[in-house]
Amino acid sequence: MERIFLGIDLGGTNIKAGCLDHNFNLLCKTAAPTDADLGPDAVIDRITDTAAKLLSENGLTMESVEAAGIGSPGTLNIAEGMVISAPNFPKFRNIPLRDMLSRRLSKPVVFENDANAACWAEYRAGAGKGVNDMLFMTLGTGIGGGIISNGELVHGYFDNAAEFGHIIIQKDGRGCVCGQQGCVEAYSSAAATAKRAGEALQAGAKSSLRKIFETNGDVTCKDVFEHCAQGDRLAVNIVEGTCSALGLLCVNLLHITGPQRIVFAGGMIAAGQILADKIRYFFEQYIWHLKPEPVEICLASLGEDAGIIGTAALALHAEQQGKL
Amino acid sequence: MERIFLGIDLGGTNIKAGCLDHNFNLLCKTAAPTDADLGPDAVIDRITDTAAKLLSENGLTMESVEAAGIGSPGTLNIAEGMVISAPNFPKFRNIPLRDMLSRRLSKPVVFENDANAACWAEYRAGAGKGVNDMLFMTLGTGIGGGIISNGELVHGYFDNAAEFGHIIIQKDGRGCVCGQQGCVEAYSSAAATAKRAGEALQAGAKSSLRKIFETNGDVTCKDVFEHCAQGDRLAVNIVEGTCSALGLLCVNLLHITGPQRIVFAGGMIAAGQILADKIRYFFEQYIWHLKPEPVEICLASLGEDAGIIGTAALALHAEQQGKL
Repeated sequence: MERIFLGIDLGGTNIKAGCLDHNFNLLCKTAAPTDADLGPDAVIDRITDTAAKLLSENGLTMESVEAAGIGSPGTLNIAEGMVISAPNFPKFRNIPLRDMLSRRLSKPVVFENDANAACWAEYRAGAGKGVNDMLFMTLGTGIGGGIISNGELVHGYFDNAAEFGHIIIQKDGRGCVCGQQGCVEAYSSAAATAKRAGEALQAGAKSSLRKIFETNGDVTCKDVFEHCAQGDRLAVNIVEGTCSALGLLCVNLLHITGPQRIVFAGGMIAAGQILADKIRYFFEQYIWHLKPEPVEICLASLGEDAGIIGTAALALHAEQQGKL
Repeated sequence: MERIFLGIDLGGTNIKAGCLDHNFNLLCKTAAPTDADLGPDAVIDRITDTAAKLLSENGLTMESVEAAGIGSPGTLNIAEGMVISAPNFPKFRNIPLRDMLSRRLSKPVVFENDANAACWAEYRAGAGKGVNDMLFMTLGTGIGGGIISNGELVHGYFDNAAEFGHIIIQKDGRGCVCGQQGCVEAYSSAAATAKRAGEALQAGAKSSLRKIFETNGDVTCKDVFEHCAQGDRLAVNIVEGTCSALGLLCVNLLHITGPQRIVFAGGMIAAGQILADKIRYFFEQYIWHLKPEPVEICLASLGEDAGIIGTAALALHAEQQGKL
């Protein structure tokens, strides 16, 4: 019987679960509402029920599961398998999620933050396959990510590595939600992209976005990218501001961990290859010409499945390293 | 007979050599002129002669040497043990320095860049002892450094990690020698600190530095720090500019690799604890207050011996890992 690995992607809205084989094939997947407000015990029940249902509906059994992985949002203690706190999980305070789940499943469980799990998925099975030094960056409401250095995730001493959104690229620049000034997230997140467009429209800029702005009181990042694709000058300027800050961020990250490839993910990559091309363009503007820096900049390939693939693949990795 | 490790620090002016025991005690050390212009074979002769003399003068023999480490400046291929090019070594082009030295010594040789070797020394035997996630930064004519992540050096795919001086902290900021704009090195290296003071003096700023400036046509970084300690307002402003950019850099680095400790080294740390205190002050100004970030900022403790201790300690590490 083939041994499989269970991946759990715990989100504020949904729990996603999937099964992976040794070759990183996603055999099956499902999702269920998290109902985080009910608290940790109810969420653990929901996870185990969802996993059991997924297995039985696909002709699999818990006996065939070698190990599980779970990815969580929030502030975590990775080594201890604890959720210290998480914005959408008000009742989760110092919850030993890894060990609770391990007891319920009677399986070893690997614990990771959600961005690192998605990073690991792209590294082992997606756009970073075969690349041992890789950066992964999610462009959503905020900007997060993960770092693979010499084939392993970088966690940092306080499990605080890869907070890429809060790298300051402009001293005394735009205020960020985090309280710092000049963070790349204040320019380039989906929220900041929409906000910068809204500010320009408010100030009277001519744009094909005006109708949406006057109807809704704001515009979305998706609106901005759509009108950019249609050639609207304001939208092009805003998108270039977004990509310019990301290109500069790539320069900085290159000078720190020296990646072979930088993989962008998150909602914003729906814009397609033009996004990677524009980031690359600005990267080339900002990088030194002392010596060539042939870092690759590309888009993630696993989409919404990255969380379940990554957590299951981390369980597989732990098994291969004899760390279960 | 105790087994010892030989460390070689290859510099443009001098070759330094030292012997380390298993407990990181520096048993003896020496130095000799590099005479790099004579080319790779002559430099290898000089290294082996210097090492042989060091051993015999200290009652040691080549038989007791388990392995050697060598740290080199320049653009390197670490895995291949090659010097691709190095500014003060005009005849060094794609030189297999590691294997040349290994053949001459009849010992395994570990090869590393000079900044990483010094980083490793502080990590194993200096200000970073016991800290598995550490950053090391040298403040000299330029700014370089090294990264320890989970107890290992980060090299990057192209051996291009830890180019801390060329992290851009100000988009479209001061021009840097590297061709980029707004690099931290353009504000905070010893050369940039002296240059910013010279610019202000040229523009007519009042300062106790003026006499030196008018006599010599410029001021040194050391002058600026000395006059800062005496309370000269311009010198204080210049030093604060230096430390402000370094504090911001610490914020950025914290958000990337998540170190427990950041260790500053290089000529500028002759200024003493005030330097670390001022960098810490600005770090606190720029860092978010979302959650505490108790990263430690301190000064290196091994001084000029870091190169020989680090290279020897890397040879010891390779031996302990069974990688010789």
